[in-house]
Amino acid sequence: MLAGMSSGASRDHFWAVVPAGGSGTRLWPLSRRDTPKFLQDLTGSGRSLLQGTVDRLRPLCGERVLVVTGARHAAAVREQLPDLPAANLLVEPEPRDSMPAVGWAAAVLERRDPEAVIGSFAADHVIGDAEAFRARVEEAVHAAADGSLVTLGIRPGYPATGYGYISPGAPAAVPGAPDTRRVARFVEKPDLARAREHVAAGDLWNAGMFVVAAARLLDLLGRWHPELAAALRRVAADPAALESEWAGLEPVAIDHAVAEPAAAAGEVAVVPGDFPWDDVGDFASLADRLAESGEHPGMRVLGPADLVVSQDSTGVIAARGGRTVVTLGIPDVVVIDTADAVLVTTRERVQDVKQVVETLRRLGKEELT
Amino acid sequence: MLAGMSSGASRDHFWAVVPAGGSGTRLWPLSRRDTPKFLQDLTGSGRSLLQGTVDRLRPLCGERVLVVTGARHAAAVREQLPDLPAANLLVEPEPRDSMPAVGWAAAVLERRDPEAVIGSFAADHVIGDAEAFRARVEEAVHAAADGSLVTLGIRPGYPATGYGYISPGAPAAVPGAPDTRRVARFVEKPDLARAREHVAAGDLWNAGMFVVAAARLLDLLGRWHPELAAALRRVAADPAALESEWAGLEPVAIDHAVAEPAAAAGEVAVVPGDFPWDDVGDFASLADRLAESGEHPGMRVLGPADLVVSQDSTGVIAARGGRTVVTLGIPDVVVIDTADAVLVTTRERVQDVKQVVETLRRLGKEELT
Repeated sequence: MLAGMSSGASRDHFWAVVPAGGSGTRLWPLSRRDTPKFLQDLTGSGRSLLQGTVDRLRPLCGERVLVVTGARHAAAVREQLPDLPAANLLVEPEPRDSMPAVGWAAAVLERRDPEAVIGSFAADHVIGDAEAFRARVEEAVHAAADGSLVTLGIRPGYPATGYGYISPGAPAAVPGAPDTRRVARFVEKPDLARAREHVAAGDLWNAGMFVVAAARLLDLLGRWHPELAAALRRVAADPAALESEWAGLEPVAIDHAVAEPAAAAGEVAVVPGDFPWDDVGDFASLADRLAESGEHPGMRVLGPADLVVSQDSTGVIAARGGRTVVTLGIPDVVVIDTADAVLVTTRERVQDVKQVVETLRRLGKEELT
Repeated sequence: MLAGMSSGASRDHFWAVVPAGGSGTRLWPLSRRDTPKFLQDLTGSGRSLLQGTVDRLRPLCGERVLVVTGARHAAAVREQLPDLPAANLLVEPEPRDSMPAVGWAAAVLERRDPEAVIGSFAADHVIGDAEAFRARVEEAVHAAADGSLVTLGIRPGYPATGYGYISPGAPAAVPGAPDTRRVARFVEKPDLARAREHVAAGDLWNAGMFVVAAARLLDLLGRWHPELAAALRRVAADPAALESEWAGLEPVAIDHAVAEPAAAAGEVAVVPGDFPWDDVGDFASLADRLAESGEHPGMRVLGPADLVVSQDSTGVIAARGGRTVVTLGIPDVVVIDTADAVLVTTRERVQDVKQVVETLRRLGKEELT
């Protein structure tokens, strides 16, 4: 059993695992295959989402950060995280969804430290109150001490249809984790009417954040996907086996592979989080993260504000092409200017941007996607 | 008295005078101080408006073309019209409105040929039927033989409020000019109600096109602006006097300086023109000149069509920045992409683009204007 995070000993066992993947096609042309959103500063902070994720975890994990990314992005990750030791960057030969990524990290870490507890946090989310976040992660580490798979659920700000929900059950009654509840079930993305019901019932958004002992995660995985768990442990034991093993791995999300069946077995707990959280899924969400321009009321600006001139317009402008961007007389406009492509749409169509990416591929313009 | 254009002798006296000026701020960012609209291909023809103007006149005037432009644009004009002899390019030290420009050309040409008849046609207009246009110019040359100042008026396609109108009076009764009428009066740009009345009354758009004997134009000018006429003749006689004389010239439009008072004196005639004509004053007008994209119904494209992807959008896109331009879900959108600036507006706001240029200057971004 793990001691509380307040003791130096237990801090030494906590590892932040950061899966850095995802294409973010609804954020095209900012997000591209080669420069996905986790590599970009989408908040105007001067740090990429990946860097922000690691910065946020450092006070908890110190140097114990392990990043899992694809071969395509490994060089960029190394450049953005120059202090990350080579041994703490796992490079997937090709994407295999979240379970192999997080499971591989768990397998590597259980070999380094049989008592390792991992917290898995996607590289492309934005969290508004880092201190509150870290306090909730500390509670999750306490809650994981009994062997639970612990997730952090977000208190909904509105009845979102773009996120799955978590229905909490009875209190977990774990020392040091007073707000932790058992998870009754995970719910897929609902329609608006059901989303309202979930909010009214006190359900939480599933933000895909898990805290669990590394060895325990693999044991749980072994219960439902024994081949996958065994393969990941073989890769961790013999890195030379990576290429040959990886090609045969089952591509599956951690939710489906472990979290849902474990919840049904009563082995998942949830810590509710009140901190602001966003997966920056589309340009409306991006706009909400940005401060309103002082110069141009109603217009949010990403990039140098002096490149933007907005007259009688509201919405969001990303000036990432070095060019001056001028809008005149368009409400709720979205203008995303980059070096080789500019997108013009409106807030109500931001969900359809991913179709634009499909269109570009159909037209043979893969180099833009 | 001049003979008809059908005789070789009279053709030898006809000169096309092309004032190449005007800023076209409503076409920003396509049109700039250094690259105004007359230097640009705004029709997708592969020729600039200036080149198109000269091409259109060549069958009438042969080599007898004289271009008047500002010092800022002289090099670009020489580049676009490589066959223009140096003596046929008059370079104004600074803009002084249309009367000094056209009057200087008239003064130069009356010295070369006392019988010279000039036709003055702005470099930044688009005309849809060159043959019909030339036939009307020929009639205007006949009509100018009695010493009249002859203008070409355009039959209105709609009750425009952006153009002045010409009210025709009695038939001119000049041999070879059967459709020519005296001009009762010139009317400034009207409001919509008055514009409708003008259209109903058979009035014509004032397109600023004049045909007149060179010496006669200067004599008319001398009647109302004797100092200006004398100064222009001094400059023509002694080019070394240009700099010193030009600074003191009265800046005045040819309409106010000569056409309106001459009309009041019964000395102006008008030839009605049925050819399509447009001064490409704004992006709505520009859009109307462009063919609809085959690939993107409802979207007009200026520039390489393969740079444009339009989904659920109508309007006009100028892809002049080498970048792919994507619009999603915006009706009547106007996107003008250039190397250093992109403008996003809608068709109903195209008249306000000139305010954007003022804003850019106020913000210290003159280099973009």
